[in-house]
Amino acid sequence: MSSTDPIANLATLIRCPSVTPAEGGALSALDAMLAPLGFKIDRVMAKDENTPDIENLYARLGNDGPHLLFAGHTDVVPVGNEADWSRPPFAADIADGEMYGRGAVDMKGGIACFVAAVARHIEKNGAPKGSISFLITGDEEGPAINGTTKLLEWAADKGERWDACLVGEPTNPDQLGDMIKIGRRGSLSGKITVHGVQGHAAYPHLADNPVRGVLALTSALMHPPFDAGTDNFQPSNLEVTTIDVANSAVNVIPARATASFNIRFNDTWSVESLQSEILARLDRAAQESPLRAGREPVKYDIVWSERPSHVFLTHNEALISSLSDAVEAVVGRRPKLSTTGGTSDARFIKDHCPVVEFGPVGQTMHMVDERVSVSDLETLTQIYETFIDRWFGNAAA
Amino acid sequence: MSSTDPIANLATLIRCPSVTPAEGGALSALDAMLAPLGFKIDRVMAKDENTPDIENLYARLGNDGPHLLFAGHTDVVPVGNEADWSRPPFAADIADGEMYGRGAVDMKGGIACFVAAVARHIEKNGAPKGSISFLITGDEEGPAINGTTKLLEWAADKGERWDACLVGEPTNPDQLGDMIKIGRRGSLSGKITVHGVQGHAAYPHLADNPVRGVLALTSALMHPPFDAGTDNFQPSNLEVTTIDVANSAVNVIPARATASFNIRFNDTWSVESLQSEILARLDRAAQESPLRAGREPVKYDIVWSERPSHVFLTHNEALISSLSDAVEAVVGRRPKLSTTGGTSDARFIKDHCPVVEFGPVGQTMHMVDERVSVSDLETLTQIYETFIDRWFGNAAA
Repeated sequence: MSSTDPIANLATLIRCPSVTPAEGGALSALDAMLAPLGFKIDRVMAKDENTPDIENLYARLGNDGPHLLFAGHTDVVPVGNEADWSRPPFAADIADGEMYGRGAVDMKGGIACFVAAVARHIEKNGAPKGSISFLITGDEEGPAINGTTKLLEWAADKGERWDACLVGEPTNPDQLGDMIKIGRRGSLSGKITVHGVQGHAAYPHLADNPVRGVLALTSALMHPPFDAGTDNFQPSNLEVTTIDVANSAVNVIPARATASFNIRFNDTWSVESLQSEILARLDRAAQESPLRAGREPVKYDIVWSERPSHVFLTHNEALISSLSDAVEAVVGRRPKLSTTGGTSDARFIKDHCPVVEFGPVGQTMHMVDERVSVSDLETLTQIYETFIDRWFGNAAA
Repeated sequence: MSSTDPIANLATLIRCPSVTPAEGGALSALDAMLAPLGFKIDRVMAKDENTPDIENLYARLGNDGPHLLFAGHTDVVPVGNEADWSRPPFAADIADGEMYGRGAVDMKGGIACFVAAVARHIEKNGAPKGSISFLITGDEEGPAINGTTKLLEWAADKGERWDACLVGEPTNPDQLGDMIKIGRRGSLSGKITVHGVQGHAAYPHLADNPVRGVLALTSALMHPPFDAGTDNFQPSNLEVTTIDVANSAVNVIPARATASFNIRFNDTWSVESLQSEILARLDRAAQESPLRAGREPVKYDIVWSERPSHVFLTHNEALISSLSDAVEAVVGRRPKLSTTGGTSDARFIKDHCPVVEFGPVGQTMHMVDERVSVSDLETLTQIYETFIDRWFGNAAA
């Protein structure tokens, strides 16, 4: 059965130019790998206003529990300037022990290895003692409107329930086995507009410079720190990502200033408690800034981003230890359990079942010359296969 | 002699649409008022690269000292939306005791009154016991490249020397007689660019957010105050007039932030000492900001504005008391000696002779429905005439 070879699987997937929102043949290629293994496959088209239609795939092997889900995406980010690549981005060339191609690590590599691991598991043990499913989207790198969330809803509506999920995103910073992600910080963004009174720079008492206000408000957001971190999370961190006034006349005090910020927050906070803290800081700074001594409080309004990401931490011991043990069994060291980095589709999956993330070394993700070590593909496949064995063993126990 | 009537003089000047850089007939009209009084008149065309050619006027009556100079401008700012005016902006309509028109207070009004005052002085006393000159530019409201500075140079090159100068700009905030300007604050502008390192908002340790740097630097410029003011001057005041980043991606830490500032400074400072203080504040903030604890100093550069205005204060007692006494003699109260407000062409004249400023109530300057009280025109003419009498009396003594 050829799909036991992760290198062949990945070459097939890389050769499908599936830059979001294009399916590019990648889901069909996956379909062709899974069908011979006995998976029942659904191709699910998702539509929404103002975003492209997206094709997704759900595949299940088995009818009973326990039910293990593997989640990921076949869409990839654009190649950038193709001339900068030392190998073509959709050729899957191998050089010096590495396979080149867009998606090699993010995240066709993880999919290729999990398919191979399942094929090997079946070859060795026959059908799993439960069910294994793939939930694969074509809209993770794009607007993410027609991707994982809709596919999860579609499957849940059909009655699908899962006991645990592994996401195959690249989680290892330097070497395979470094890190499992067992949660993610939340992400909340907002835009502040400060309303001042325009005037002449020589008559500041007749004006109200909104730059003073925006400095007071944004400084209060950036300092002091929101927390010192928790057992499983880094300290929450807020960055003001832009301040804009666009006043070209240096002798004119402007009427308005805006600032946007993004905070990555840990389990000290919920979205709601964090919004309260931010509003409290802003209101205090609006009243008390030394930059505006003797003036009325800063007049401002705030608009929150529509889709904040909630923080989550997975506590499922069977899932985490099955994966950690599998990593240790194959590479000889225990992975760090981490919640660092950006958001991922795991934030949607955690509402359905416990979820962890483990996949290739991520160093070249989104870069020119994205590539993955060929030997890592074999190692990752062994880790995934060992994980499948152990998880079904643990789940049955 | 009709030019003894300031109302008629002003109506004639307002009817000339002399929006910078257009002469609009205003200098010719002034020429026609001054020539019959015996003034020798020069029309001086000034040229420079990248700015329009500008016509200016210099007129002298008398050959000997003491030599009194009246300085001003016949150019006016644009009318804005003409439909918003309740009277046409170039018609000199009188309604409810006020004459309407662009330039009514800034500053055709002052010129009209000084011409009338000189005409009355001559009518009463004959030629002045010394010389009176007019230095009138057509480029005060524009780039000011081809205006007062060039006309002063042209006259000085011809051997013209002055003992005192009165600028007829609108100096009275509420009522005629409120305020004489005996100096002006300086003005210095600069633009700061903070260089950071772009990155993902979820990985701030791999980036260096220039917004943190620009907040630290600009906060240090705005607080604490530069000084508490001096006997003759308000406290120096700095306004950050714009901050710009123009980063539309809220999950991206930007690479660069810019900020511009303008400081109106008093005689605590020279341009040079102020630049040193600003650089010291910036360097200290670049090292020490709590917003950037544990990071390398902020990388920034600063570009100063090309033409700062130097602070000045006129100490000439004969000039100040002649004018103060004249105001008190006519309106019954002593004017405040002030250095408030923006810059004016007086900052160029002070390099040639002592200079003070006194003119109409300035409330409607640059606004729609710019207008001047008709009775104020008569009062201002009387003040100017009394000033001329006293100044020549004091200068002779």
